Amino acid sequence: MRGEDEIKSRVVGVDISINNTTYAIVDIRGNIIAEDNFPTSDYSNISDFVTKLSESILQQMEENGGYETIRSIGVSCPSASFLTGSIVNAPNLPWKGNIPLAAMLRDRLGLAVGIANDAHVSAMGEYAYGSAHGMKNFIVISLGVGLGSCFYSEGHEHQGFGGYAGEFGHTCVHEFGRKCACGKEGCLEAYCAANGIVQTAQELLAATDAPSLLRDQERLSPRIIASCCSQGDAIALEVYRKMGSTLGLGLANYASLLSPQAIILTGGISHAAEWFLDSLLESFERNVFQTIRDKVLILVSKLNDHEREVLGASALAWEIPEYSLFR
Amino acid sequence: MRGEDEIKSRVVGVDISINNTTYAIVDIRGNIIAEDNFPTSDYSNISDFVTKLSESILQQMEENGGYETIRSIGVSCPSASFLTGSIVNAPNLPWKGNIPLAAMLRDRLGLAVGIANDAHVSAMGEYAYGSAHGMKNFIVISLGVGLGSCFYSEGHEHQGFGGYAGEFGHTCVHEFGRKCACGKEGCLEAYCAANGIVQTAQELLAATDAPSLLRDQERLSPRIIASCCSQGDAIALEVYRKMGSTLGLGLANYASLLSPQAIILTGGISHAAEWFLDSLLESFERNVFQTIRDKVLILVSKLNDHEREVLGASALAWEIPEYSLFR
Amino acid sequence: MRGEDEIKSRVVGVDISINNTTYAIVDIRGNIIAEDNFPTSDYSNISDFVTKLSESILQQMEENGGYETIRSIGVSCPSASFLTGSIVNAPNLPWKGNIPLAAMLRDRLGLAVGIANDAHVSAMGEYAYGSAHGMKNFIVISLGVGLGSCFYSEGHEHQGFGGYAGEFGHTCVHEFGRKCACGKEGCLEAYCAANGIVQTAQELLAATDAPSLLRDQERLSPRIIASCCSQGDAIALEVYRKMGSTLGLGLANYASLLSPQAIILTGGISHAAEWFLDSLLESFERNVFQTIRDKVLILVSKLNDHEREVLGASALAWEIPEYSLFR
Amino acid sequence: MRGEDEIKSRVVGVDISINNTTYAIVDIRGNIIAEDNFPTSDYSNISDFVTKLSESILQQMEENGGYETIRSIGVSCPSASFLTGSIVNAPNLPWKGNIPLAAMLRDRLGLAVGIANDAHVSAMGEYAYGSAHGMKNFIVISLGVGLGSCFYSEGHEHQGFGGYAGEFGHTCVHEFGRKCACGKEGCLEAYCAANGIVQTAQELLAATDAPSLLRDQERLSPRIIASCCSQGDAIALEVYRKMGSTLGLGLANYASLLSPQAIILTGGISHAAEWFLDSLLESFERNVFQTIRDKVLILVSKLNDHEREVLGASALAWEIPEYSLFR
Repeated sequence: MRGEDEIKSRVVGVDISINNTTYAIVDIRGNIIAEDNFPTSDYSNISDFVTKLSESILQQMEENGGYETIRSIGVSCPSASFLTGSIVNAPNLPWKGNIPLAAMLRDRLGLAVGIANDAHVSAMGEYAYGSAHGMKNFIVISLGVGLGSCFYSEGHEHQGFGGYAGEFGHTCVHEFGRKCACGKEGCLEAYCAANGIVQTAQELLAATDAPSLLRDQERLSPRIIASCCSQGDAIALEVYRKMGSTLGLGLANYASLLSPQAIILTGGISHAAEWFLDSLLESFERNVFQTIRDKVLILVSKLNDHEREVLGASALAWEIPEYSLFR
Repeated sequence: MRGEDEIKSRVVGVDISINNTTYAIVDIRGNIIAEDNFPTSDYSNISDFVTKLSESILQQMEENGGYETIRSIGVSCPSASFLTGSIVNAPNLPWKGNIPLAAMLRDRLGLAVGIANDAHVSAMGEYAYGSAHGMKNFIVISLGVGLGSCFYSEGHEHQGFGGYAGEFGHTCVHEFGRKCACGKEGCLEAYCAANGIVQTAQELLAATDAPSLLRDQERLSPRIIASCCSQGDAIALEVYRKMGSTLGLGLANYASLLSPQAIILTGGISHAAEWFLDSLLESFERNVFQTIRDKVLILVSKLNDHEREVLGASALAWEIPEYSLFR
Repeated sequence: MRGEDEIKSRVVGVDISINNTTYAIVDIRGNIIAEDNFPTSDYSNISDFVTKLSESILQQMEENGGYETIRSIGVSCPSASFLTGSIVNAPNLPWKGNIPLAAMLRDRLGLAVGIANDAHVSAMGEYAYGSAHGMKNFIVISLGVGLGSCFYSEGHEHQGFGGYAGEFGHTCVHEFGRKCACGKEGCLEAYCAANGIVQTAQELLAATDAPSLLRDQERLSPRIIASCCSQGDAIALEVYRKMGSTLGLGLANYASLLSPQAIILTGGISHAAEWFLDSLLESFERNVFQTIRDKVLILVSKLNDHEREVLGASALAWEIPEYSLFR
Repeated sequence: MRGEDEIKSRVVGVDISINNTTYAIVDIRGNIIAEDNFPTSDYSNISDFVTKLSESILQQMEENGGYETIRSIGVSCPSASFLTGSIVNAPNLPWKGNIPLAAMLRDRLGLAVGIANDAHVSAMGEYAYGSAHGMKNFIVISLGVGLGSCFYSEGHEHQGFGGYAGEFGHTCVHEFGRKCACGKEGCLEAYCAANGIVQTAQELLAATDAPSLLRDQERLSPRIIASCCSQGDAIALEVYRKMGSTLGLGLANYASLLSPQAIILTGGISHAAEWFLDSLLESFERNVFQTIRDKVLILVSKLNDHEREVLGASALAWEIPEYSLFR
């Protein structure tokens, strides 16, 4: 049949983060046509959230070319699984239990909806529009409140049998080590994500009487510690040196298993790379197996965090089949 | 190892056509940074051509960010095979025999070079930046001097065991029919590509004394015949009606074998679609197997021919691995 | 968790043919542990058929190691689609409309069930255990009451967007030619499958008064015509010569599109290959595009028809995920 | 072209182990037609080894149906890379440096030769003929002198960008821990492969005066320690308990990254599973991330080590294209 009018050249990419939910219309080449956002935390009830998000997206469509121009929707959300289309027990979101978000949005919008966790979507963004473009085997690490990852094997993202692959933050680096929020001990996340970095700072401060700018802060955070680094604070520098060393060990193990072309660091804490990258690299090269030593590129993402998520979500939207009531 | 400076974000796309050779620097998102061209036919010796093309590309690189920013090179060329990297017995190019063009260019430029035939590259262009974006099973038809095709099966281009797949123009539609330039009889190309369309016009003119604008033309071509169509010339209209009907039959056979989501028409003659699309569709739906009747989109490409080839060649450049003297 | 007892090393392969339904327990290496059958045509009601088949399979399991040893079930059935798990409007089976056979059997048996059409399953059988083992691009043709096909592209079976690929029998070889049972005209099946071969014989007999053993037959069939060939009957020989010539043209078109390593002929009528293979090959090489001339192997399957279907169905059973009430 | 005689239905599988080199003719279904072996260590010069192996294979072919029946050759060898076809710095083989074994054998035999390391080949054997048949995501662990691994992602073996993936034995479990033979510290192999198990025994014996059967042994080995386990020796039991606990931690990390359906233990030391599997499982479930807890099958291979390698090598032989002087 003649199909001129049936080809839709735009998708919607949605990034549900702890603070904000951003939604944007994106074209085939990654141009953002329109973009808006609202506070995630205003909607403690998932039903209210879905209503707000659906109405916002519909309005955005109407104001930018119309519903008929949109092919499908991709959503980035912590703790989401692409295989099930659901969010499961998200520790950092207000909605608990198993939430079939893809189906909920599809029913409201009448469009195909794919959802995946933030590390998975970050990897899709790097593959489609970032440093991983043209690579078939690489790892993307997401450094923030949590520590996620996603890797590509021969050009496709690895999801695993159950769709739960990539839990790099919950590999153990110190047996019987720090208690992690997940209930286990010694998880990498307990040393290298936000809370772990703060805990390292607290431990270092408690272990000495040496002066430190960190002692003057009302509240410690990775960002504040990084800012003290830039002022030359010795303990702050040691915090990130330790973090880099531990992360380098974890990455060396990951790389020894996968033999990737590159490891790309993303997420808020990757912006502090200047303070941890040297120790990360030293630890990585010391701990990685010899056959791949000096052969893995360690990169900090060149996409800004926000754009990567929205673009990655748009790439996800293109990967799912169009939805049709008549099929 | 720290890899900040090792990620290259641009490629060169080259379109070698019968008349012109175009070369362009293209970024990850399909933005053309620089583009230039020279007449292909000025270089009847392949060695001279390779020298001209290499020097032109090197100069373009120097003027636009430098050699170090370029990852790899993709080339679209009639009669080229991606698997061998060679042009073989190109009927419409000045260089005869088996020409290992990919290796010749790589040796001059020190960069990875991939080459593929024009229909293959058109399909990559439609997949990366055109109507086929997001589709996993589709056919691209290239209508011009020759009649080529390429199809995607489950998201990858089908090349076949020997890399010679897609010879749609040389499938037989009329046993013991018109002699084709390839030596066989009844090939679709002998009815639906440039020479075949002209031959149909000549046959119709010879079969009647009816007046026709076509009789006033010094030389017939698909473009001239289309222009007579737009002036309402009955014989010109009949030429394209017959062409569409025959092409519709060929496409129905193709679609019955493949069950594609869409068939996308590209190439110079696709611009005459308004004169052949109705008869094509009628013939297609009549001849296609019932299970897929009304289920295949027939589209005319929305990319312009030139851009599609250069962008498709850039997509090809991203698909091959980077070249390194140290690997 | 410890999984010793959870690994199941056997599957059930089912071949639903027009006359008989065969079901067998097959191990990983293609050894048939047990096999039985019943007449398909005894069950004109699909519900009765499903009851009979389910009970038969359950009994076979009990007598051969138990239900717990069986991983999953694969079913070969004319007009079945793997993507939907349904039989749709099967012209040669007693059950009409859209029948979700995979779901019906799964509900009765509590095991994962995959179904696919006979040509698809034949191709899986040739790939797993026959001449196509180790090939990544090949075509399997099924010659019988109908004329089906399936091809592999880069190691996976091509199903197409809608799952209806492979309708080789309904590609048109003679525009406005013989009326086919499908409603179209000039279909290859109308010349090269059972009824078409008989029709050719009738036409040849009607066109001449020459004596022929065929005139003495109460009823013509491909098998009877082949048997007259072996007695040297000139008209019978001409029937298969014409069939081979037409099939060779169709295969040449198929091969020009796909560039396969091999084409494998299966099905009842392939046993008459000695009477049509010479003309098929002559026609194929004459009509195929030059770049692949002399490069495609034309083979008659070495597996017996029956075994290929049961083994192919077992290969299908391994390709689907295990079913679990707890997943 | 008619291809009856061109289809070859057998391959040769070769297993080069530290002590013995085994070579066998295997058919499509994994039946071993003929098998023989010679001591690897008799050939300290690679050239002599290649001569011996080539002549042995040629003679085996002649005695079993002839050279013409063999399609290709697959070779399992420690430290081999499939991507390069070479053995690189094998620590446990007599031949040093970079040895292009695949090319050396192909030149002698005129047949396509594929080679891969033992864990890779084990995984292919489990996939084709063992517990992983029908799985798309699984890990195979090889426990012996070394500690290797290979995983499948979506149905294909992951090799990584450089082809060096799977170095599970050289992931670090104890930072600054035991010195490994590879030069690094704290490698899993230094605790869970042959030498590491013996070292654990020696450390436990040195730490106490408690009586133990182990003290009476002239030389400790994993096999001897296991045999003392079966006699109830407390220290021997503790050796394997510790080994299982450490291996369980390493596997938990691996599984948290991959979300596999199963982990299959192979190799000589897997035969001592009864002494380490309980502690392995306890440690695994304690250390694995919650989303996949209780969802990964831990299996000991049911294929015998020897058969798995030869069959896996035969599966490898089928995966490479046939070699032809005329192509």
